[in-house]
Amino acid sequence: MDARRYNFSSGPAVLPEPVLRRAQDALWDLDGTGIGILEHSHRGAAFERVLARTEAAIRRVGGIGDDHAVLFLQGGASSQFFMVPMNLLGGGTADVCDSGIWAQKATAEAKRFGEVHVACAGANTTPSWSASPTYAHYTSNETIGGVQWREPPTPPDGVPLICDASSDIFSRPLDFDRHALVYAGAQKNLGPSGVTLVIIRRELAERGSRDLPPMLQYRTYVAERSMYNTPPTFGIYVIGEVVAWLEAQGGIPAITAHNAAKARALYDFLDGSPLFQGAAPAGARSMMNVTFRTTSPALDAKFLDEATAAGLDGLAGHRSVGGMRASLYNAFPLAGVEALVAQMADFERRHG
Amino acid sequence: MDARRYNFSSGPAVLPEPVLRRAQDALWDLDGTGIGILEHSHRGAAFERVLARTEAAIRRVGGIGDDHAVLFLQGGASSQFFMVPMNLLGGGTADVCDSGIWAQKATAEAKRFGEVHVACAGANTTPSWSASPTYAHYTSNETIGGVQWREPPTPPDGVPLICDASSDIFSRPLDFDRHALVYAGAQKNLGPSGVTLVIIRRELAERGSRDLPPMLQYRTYVAERSMYNTPPTFGIYVIGEVVAWLEAQGGIPAITAHNAAKARALYDFLDGSPLFQGAAPAGARSMMNVTFRTTSPALDAKFLDEATAAGLDGLAGHRSVGGMRASLYNAFPLAGVEALVAQMADFERRHG
Repeated sequence: MDARRYNFSSGPAVLPEPVLRRAQDALWDLDGTGIGILEHSHRGAAFERVLARTEAAIRRVGGIGDDHAVLFLQGGASSQFFMVPMNLLGGGTADVCDSGIWAQKATAEAKRFGEVHVACAGANTTPSWSASPTYAHYTSNETIGGVQWREPPTPPDGVPLICDASSDIFSRPLDFDRHALVYAGAQKNLGPSGVTLVIIRRELAERGSRDLPPMLQYRTYVAERSMYNTPPTFGIYVIGEVVAWLEAQGGIPAITAHNAAKARALYDFLDGSPLFQGAAPAGARSMMNVTFRTTSPALDAKFLDEATAAGLDGLAGHRSVGGMRASLYNAFPLAGVEALVAQMADFERRHG
Repeated sequence: MDARRYNFSSGPAVLPEPVLRRAQDALWDLDGTGIGILEHSHRGAAFERVLARTEAAIRRVGGIGDDHAVLFLQGGASSQFFMVPMNLLGGGTADVCDSGIWAQKATAEAKRFGEVHVACAGANTTPSWSASPTYAHYTSNETIGGVQWREPPTPPDGVPLICDASSDIFSRPLDFDRHALVYAGAQKNLGPSGVTLVIIRRELAERGSRDLPPMLQYRTYVAERSMYNTPPTFGIYVIGEVVAWLEAQGGIPAITAHNAAKARALYDFLDGSPLFQGAAPAGARSMMNVTFRTTSPALDAKFLDEATAAGLDGLAGHRSVGGMRASLYNAFPLAGVEALVAQMADFERRHG
């Protein structure tokens, strides 16, 4: 079947079709080696090239210098929620910005390893920092609420800033020099689930606890270039292809404009609609996950049924909040947003 | 390019070609859903079906009953090396069977969480158990030395037996009822790197420490059916396809005979060769990883160069021991062994 549906899933999520086509070839034969990407030894030259080009593409697209290591871990952002404080908190105080459910999950894990000070409630609010934070943590985009920080919060001088950028990395500019650690589960803007990109200042990795299994210390991944044990080779390959695709689209400037156009088309419709309403506060609307609802759960359900039947997939809101959610990650096409808006306009005419 | 090379890699390793063909299709469109396997939400019906059929196939092929949970984790066997004692040892004594480098790595991690008693040195030796082991751990096959247990060691009654079966799971019969926990990195007999299969007695998972981040507790994966957070969806899909392929080949009985025939062809040649010698003790030879060498490192290097040029890939021994290693996992074809034996015979005629 060649007819692919519009996939609004919040993650795992839509990937660029040219990347899927290349990955199909690589499954059988990576780069003319006569061996597929799933089957290559991680210690062989072919995979070493994949790892090197993936890291290089990430550095170019993100503008990431050598003060930061670019690492590939496993276990998702959920493992970073505990690895960050396990390595770095050591009984100190973590200042956290509570923007929603994902920030709260990170907060819960930090409490196991030290004190937590909730510095602000809501994205784009002004934090009130504690006297001496060991680090500051925020979640740049919340997939469930559909809220997003416009600019990173600014902690006091010398306090490492840590960001969970799982759901908006490489969708817009991010100043890595301002951040001591940025982590992101791959399954939104980067590639398949099962790889976590960690971009950490080398000096911070060295500061981490040494009293942990090597697999739980950041310095292990820095020292071994993510090859202390067998890394998730296929996921790293796909990330490399996705970031190369992003670069070919014009990199962060071009994708930022593309993402803004997609989000604007949908928010503009919502702002003019008598039936559909945006669910996030206007000052914190996400460009990645647009949350909305009608006037009743029954109409929401009817809309979702019809949208699914029309080839618009994955629009149900997170089960904890209901309603609808359109995830518009980098690879999602503008034509899909236009199809959604047309579907909403038609639904509104019949039910408004 | 359609010419694939014979891939003797110790892992990631050769996979069945029909599985690669199906995976190529699924990258674009999984099961006619119009969305690729990398892009499907893990909470959607399509992936739920993949997860269910993968678990069911594993249970059928392995003869695994409901007393054991079948779990999909991340982080490789290297993460199990610490998760096992972190969850289960609690200051007690781990009895370990030291069969080689992988067993020693597991042992090093156990020492962080309690006492370690080395019960035996070498595969297929008779263990001398401690007075009151909390659990007994062994490594069923060692990829570096090329040694393998014929039968699992037998700990005292009531002592949980734990096996690292990363490199020989589903290559021959394994009595899961005798084991409290079996773990295996996927990248040899099961699928891509980045998934770790964990088969654990439910009662043992419940006994584990509750004073750990949920991502590090086995009970989390049992309770959430490996879906506490986003699992490595593609890896789970491929495992499902590989195990279905194995079942179609005739399951464990058929693959055991197939693997025995491959190993026998190579060991028979080694036993008759004036130039090549097997590196493992005769009583502990592995059916999965056949280690061997010539009379000098210089000849080894020459043989490896010629073999690579002849389309026989990945034959170099582990960097810590040198020599040669032919990994003959389930998907490796008998024709590849015959090609290797022919290459060795030819080399012997010219250099013997």
